[in-house]
Amino acid sequence: MNDPLPRVGIDDIRAAAERIRPYAHRTPILTSSTMDALTGARVFFKCENFQRVGAFKFRGACNAVYSLDDATAARGVATHSSGNHAQALALAARIRGIAACIVMPRDAPRVKVDAVRGYGARIVFAGAAPEDREKTLQEVVSETGAEFVHPSDDLRVIAGQGTASLEIFEDLPDLDIIITPVGGGGLLSGTALAARALSPSTRVIGAEPAAADDAWRSFTTGTLHKSGNPHTIADGLRTSLGPHTFPIVRACVDRIVTASEESIAAAMRLVWERMKVVIEPSAAVALAVLLDGSLEAKGKRVAIVFSGGNVDLDSLPWMKPTS
Amino acid sequence: MNDPLPRVGIDDIRAAAERIRPYAHRTPILTSSTMDALTGARVFFKCENFQRVGAFKFRGACNAVYSLDDATAARGVATHSSGNHAQALALAARIRGIAACIVMPRDAPRVKVDAVRGYGARIVFAGAAPEDREKTLQEVVSETGAEFVHPSDDLRVIAGQGTASLEIFEDLPDLDIIITPVGGGGLLSGTALAARALSPSTRVIGAEPAAADDAWRSFTTGTLHKSGNPHTIADGLRTSLGPHTFPIVRACVDRIVTASEESIAAAMRLVWERMKVVIEPSAAVALAVLLDGSLEAKGKRVAIVFSGGNVDLDSLPWMKPTS
Repeated sequence: MNDPLPRVGIDDIRAAAERIRPYAHRTPILTSSTMDALTGARVFFKCENFQRVGAFKFRGACNAVYSLDDATAARGVATHSSGNHAQALALAARIRGIAACIVMPRDAPRVKVDAVRGYGARIVFAGAAPEDREKTLQEVVSETGAEFVHPSDDLRVIAGQGTASLEIFEDLPDLDIIITPVGGGGLLSGTALAARALSPSTRVIGAEPAAADDAWRSFTTGTLHKSGNPHTIADGLRTSLGPHTFPIVRACVDRIVTASEESIAAAMRLVWERMKVVIEPSAAVALAVLLDGSLEAKGKRVAIVFSGGNVDLDSLPWMKPTS
Repeated sequence: MNDPLPRVGIDDIRAAAERIRPYAHRTPILTSSTMDALTGARVFFKCENFQRVGAFKFRGACNAVYSLDDATAARGVATHSSGNHAQALALAARIRGIAACIVMPRDAPRVKVDAVRGYGARIVFAGAAPEDREKTLQEVVSETGAEFVHPSDDLRVIAGQGTASLEIFEDLPDLDIIITPVGGGGLLSGTALAARALSPSTRVIGAEPAAADDAWRSFTTGTLHKSGNPHTIADGLRTSLGPHTFPIVRACVDRIVTASEESIAAAMRLVWERMKVVIEPSAAVALAVLLDGSLEAKGKRVAIVFSGGNVDLDSLPWMKPTS
């Protein structure tokens, strides 16, 4: 199979970094002697849970919003998302002073709807099925002329997400391994592109819930698989690779490794208990594969992207369900 | 009333800082635009929840352990505590390579007993009443010759806790207000001594649960009040001022302010949700009094010490009790 050459690269990531610098945080990198002891590696945690809106998603959304020329921007931006991208696009649009319209499923949690509304975005509800939300999004775009910014499969978004790894490689030379979670593949694609340009010897690993292993199947078979409606606590990783992210992941990622729901929950709890930082289940997947011993990482220098910290504190994986 | 002059001061705090530097973390100071917006102040959070053993207590315990001459140290150290001081003293002793014996109540949570044991300390169980634990401690000291290191009312401990504020004043000039929680008063005393020497115009505030307001009563009346067996989620603040800390607090602290249990739980949850860092209820009390509007803090530069991050993730204030 001839993978098409990626149409986005390190120059786009560098340009994105300049573009978002006034608005995004340069997030800290934490270490933990406990995590080093448990994994046998020297582990560096890039804390995108401390990013604005609590997730790396702000980088890509901000880059997309500030990539628009004034005339296009004046018509606003739109997306479909009930997750971190929704808040990220809403905030980026508010900062630029343009309209944002977010298509959300009618059954989206109230707290997420309120958060997006709190950033000043207009919300249009749709059915939860992909065809419903895409039809509604198309209507919004037709009516308003808004620019669609896909949560992951968008070159501007991919370049923006790559800026997290740009910072990692600036701060940490000689990394042996870098691990990010993979859902739609925006973060993993941006990371892989940055690694190939800046640190070719670093192995790039995507970490995915075993319960939503569509990226692993796509990567392994060479054919793009779509996730159905997977059940995983890593709710940010239920989406699938797309036409832009799949070829980049195929060309530039070394391996995709999966983790069980139990491993994900245990890794998340361990981080809360020992590192005292709040990460969401999706962010714990990258650590879970390392703790599982799925990688040859003993004695290695390993970077992990803590992708986000947005959790419902009333519904944690280790809580007993109340009736 | 003639308060006796404090027998510990900035020189002791500086010496403690040198002594513990190889072993303790210099913890980061975080800011949050959300917290600034909610309080109307510019707030700086000193993250002692990221300190070793997850609490500022390591500073004082480490200073005490490394203050001992070799002959005294060889006989080991002892204390009574079921909280962060127990782990702190156990770890400091292990680092120096000496014995630690911790007197704990028979009904101490298993997870705390295991943590102390994990640091290699010997545990002796006693009844929960103060006279029981003190009798048992006295027996331990008589048998072993171990040096008693009180959790708060010890000049070496007070000097050690003051090193957190030494770092704050080094990093942040022109602070208007500094707030720490107050239980036994070790942290508040060390903070107040540092402030008086380094930044005399900074107001020093102790924050205390209204449900355990013995320090407030002592401060207000000029007579040392002991807490009974107070019920507060801020379990690190159930202890009382002592013969060393009370005069320092009286002489050097501007105000003690109390917060309700509801305010404490809400402040804790807010920090987890918006700042993505895990703090324990005792650490939330200082933010709670600021959010309550109990201080004239609008437009001011305010430092808050996040004193610790050790929580039982199976029993959070907002969880419904399961039967």
